[in-house]
Amino acid sequence: MNAILIVAHGSRREESNEEIRRLTLQVAEKSAKHFDLIDTAFLELASPLIPEGIQALINKGADNVLVVPYFLARGTHVATDIPAEVAKAQHANPDTEIKISDYLGASDAMPDLLLKLAVSCQKD
Amino acid sequence: MNAILIVAHGSRREESNEEIRRLTLQVAEKSAKHFDLIDTAFLELASPLIPEGIQALINKGADNVLVVPYFLARGTHVATDIPAEVAKAQHANPDTEIKISDYLGASDAMPDLLLKLAVSCQKD
Repeated sequence: MNAILIVAHGSRREESNEEIRRLTLQVAEKSAKHFDLIDTAFLELASPLIPEGIQALINKGADNVLVVPYFLARGTHVATDIPAEVAKAQHANPDTEIKISDYLGASDAMPDLLLKLAVSCQKD
Repeated sequence: MNAILIVAHGSRREESNEEIRRLTLQVAEKSAKHFDLIDTAFLELASPLIPEGIQALINKGADNVLVVPYFLARGTHVATDIPAEVAKAQHANPDTEIKISDYLGASDAMPDLLLKLAVSCQKD
């Protein structure tokens, strides 16, 4: 089974964490053709943390886990901290393929999304 | 003339600020039909700050400025800090229409973008 784990920074404001969980549900509604399982995890400050989130997907039967960093810039979190957390889960589960996708801000589709956001507001 | 100002948090890592400026250039390549001017500004830690960024667009002839918050969650920055900075520019330029669009994380297109990011990595 193929799984996605959307990873956000995590916030002391539980409302912000809930916002990510709701977004994950919206992705789930669209992703059934490509992925069997999808969940949210956080780098810090909120639960589940990345290794727990990956483990939960594996326990549900995932053979492949794709970690998708919901981050805007290639800072230390994207370059170092997320790979380090993913490595812990990989070490505990050597037979599972665990990959990390490009972070959100690097998406080729980002310029179009920003333009769409601006145009839709201009029309209001 | 219609202008967009893409507003990011700003980082001590100049590389992250440059990432936003490059993204703005990519939006500019696509936005000519809708907007005449486009630039980047930062809430803090980088230059120009929001009031300066808005003023520069007005000095170039903008009658309408749309501020687009490049932020993922509706935290204090989106709810309070950006509107407060925009209000300063509005106060200094009462005849210019200055609006703030939805922040990036609230975009209806975000679930599709995340799925696209995941699917393109799965195919690699």
